[in-house]
Amino acid sequence: MKINGRSYRTIWPTNQDRSVEIIDQTRLPHEFKTLSLTSMNDAARAIKTMQVRGAPLIGATAAYGICLAMNEDTSDTALTNAAETLAAQRPTAINLRWAIIEMVKALRDVAPSQRVEKAFAKAAQICDDDVDICRRIGEHGLKLIEDLAAKKSAGEPVNILTHCNAGWLACVDWGTATSPIYQAHNADIPVHVWVDETRPRNQGAALTAYELGAHGVPHTIIVDNAGGHLMQHGKVDLCIVGTDRVTANGDVVNKIGTYLKALAATDNDVPFYVALPHTTIDWTCKDGMSVPIEERSQDEVLKMSGRTTDGEVVEVDIAAPGSPAGNPAFDVTPARLVSGFVTERGVCKASSQGLLSLYPERA
Amino acid sequence: MKINGRSYRTIWPTNQDRSVEIIDQTRLPHEFKTLSLTSMNDAARAIKTMQVRGAPLIGATAAYGICLAMNEDTSDTALTNAAETLAAQRPTAINLRWAIIEMVKALRDVAPSQRVEKAFAKAAQICDDDVDICRRIGEHGLKLIEDLAAKKSAGEPVNILTHCNAGWLACVDWGTATSPIYQAHNADIPVHVWVDETRPRNQGAALTAYELGAHGVPHTIIVDNAGGHLMQHGKVDLCIVGTDRVTANGDVVNKIGTYLKALAATDNDVPFYVALPHTTIDWTCKDGMSVPIEERSQDEVLKMSGRTTDGEVVEVDIAAPGSPAGNPAFDVTPARLVSGFVTERGVCKASSQGLLSLYPERA
Repeated sequence: MKINGRSYRTIWPTNQDRSVEIIDQTRLPHEFKTLSLTSMNDAARAIKTMQVRGAPLIGATAAYGICLAMNEDTSDTALTNAAETLAAQRPTAINLRWAIIEMVKALRDVAPSQRVEKAFAKAAQICDDDVDICRRIGEHGLKLIEDLAAKKSAGEPVNILTHCNAGWLACVDWGTATSPIYQAHNADIPVHVWVDETRPRNQGAALTAYELGAHGVPHTIIVDNAGGHLMQHGKVDLCIVGTDRVTANGDVVNKIGTYLKALAATDNDVPFYVALPHTTIDWTCKDGMSVPIEERSQDEVLKMSGRTTDGEVVEVDIAAPGSPAGNPAFDVTPARLVSGFVTERGVCKASSQGLLSLYPERA
Repeated sequence: MKINGRSYRTIWPTNQDRSVEIIDQTRLPHEFKTLSLTSMNDAARAIKTMQVRGAPLIGATAAYGICLAMNEDTSDTALTNAAETLAAQRPTAINLRWAIIEMVKALRDVAPSQRVEKAFAKAAQICDDDVDICRRIGEHGLKLIEDLAAKKSAGEPVNILTHCNAGWLACVDWGTATSPIYQAHNADIPVHVWVDETRPRNQGAALTAYELGAHGVPHTIIVDNAGGHLMQHGKVDLCIVGTDRVTANGDVVNKIGTYLKALAATDNDVPFYVALPHTTIDWTCKDGMSVPIEERSQDEVLKMSGRTTDGEVVEVDIAAPGSPAGNPAFDVTPARLVSGFVTERGVCKASSQGLLSLYPERA
């Protein structure tokens, strides 16, 4: 998608495949800055510190992390070490493990002398596939928005609530939850997005609002507390969120707070959809309550970064001095609260039967 | 309660009743500073800008606002003007109107020459009554905590989640939702409080955490998104919140986001109680959905104040530049999601029958 009129992906190889460029998402929305990753450790750090975030982009970055490891050392040991190091950065993200396994499968039987070239080719394919998958998620999700628009007066927007950032900044392009929104907007269907701020890291207010604004999609930022109230008053027609992992039974592991919005949607008969590529489905995991939930630093809760009137980005203490904080990063939305999944193959019910109807090869 | 070892109320008359002192709560938790109100306009501004907040304290401040108006002009016109000006500052707060009506009733048939003395006496009585009511709310709520503690192993704390600040800083002393917690803590019952940050104004992280910490009550700050996850994992034994208005049918108007926590509590069989003085009950209002919900400035969502490493308190922009925000201040928790009310007269069901069982004179 576009920033300042120029088309970007979120990650791309540069410098004759000796390095990889990313958008440093910790600097958004205050500053647009790209960052060069030149080593596997750079890639690991980018994942850990959330310079890249979002399940598909984490996977793409891990894939390029393997490439950068091969630049340094093409041995089997280096490949194994890189795979293990990268996988440890974000334990909950299923795409991270998926992409690493794909890379290892593609490289393990290749002669070390061929591994750099093969690795970059495979990582590029993972990225191109992601763009294609996100585009198709958007096409299937677009139908949901078209159906809602058909019930509106001319010019009246379809109001869509989203949580966190499952936008193109979380993927390589298009996004997952945002792809139907961008496609509706591009097709001149009036849409308006309620953007959940998404504490503690504010990916909604900082990233989703940023990318929607850059693309010209009407939107309004709200605190995470506000969505239930808006649904009670008929101001939300549809919720669409992304996910970090969907388990075999249709439970949804996503950014902390997703569960609360799904409860409110159910209580107010608002459809609640989850958009995902097939790589986010963990077929080996029976249900969401068995997924380990990452506990992140309490500083994410106790501090906030923002821009002063002087234009300087600073971090400030926002809580009572000395009080500790807890910071679980994800929660589990039970399948019973989810209206359906939007994947690259179509829309299905949030259940094992639903998932298997789209992916019969997994039966 | 105590701050730096000294007992405080949140509001008190000073200087031979020519002024009123408050704790400037917009400076907490970074700075403890008291502020002198010397005119009715000072009191109105303190209410409007949330230097005082919390239903009972808003009422007490309005009462003293009438006193300060009488200091300037004891005429009927001045009394009426003060009542109207003060009532307009926070349209949703029922206690504001209640306290103003009490003051007007106490003064309207009093000779102007007697009004200053009578006003300060009445305002002091409103404050003393509030302290007594909060103490009694605590005694009734304490039984709920004692019952939960009885099911725990020795030393294992009762985990209580609260939203916003319904603490002593919101009242004159003790608090409403916090009064049972303080009384349990004082009785050596181990308690631990999950403190919802409470965006957009962060009254949980800033005020509830501050006052619990000052009193020595173990607590952990969490983002508003986290409570559902904690309840799913059995880490919350009880929710207690305050309220800005309870309607005749038992609906609860409270800080935005309360509804989401009540949904999660219901979904996980966690008891969800609302603590309130009788003055918060709006017997004239049939249900919560008919209560006008205050829409506050978008800057509360888009900006955040905090303390820099230099100790300076600054306001920073935290969202994507140019993105608008919506800011509804309250939501409505339907009575069906509330386990019960804790009032100064006891515990009752959240229904018109429940309320009338405690307040039969309203039947």
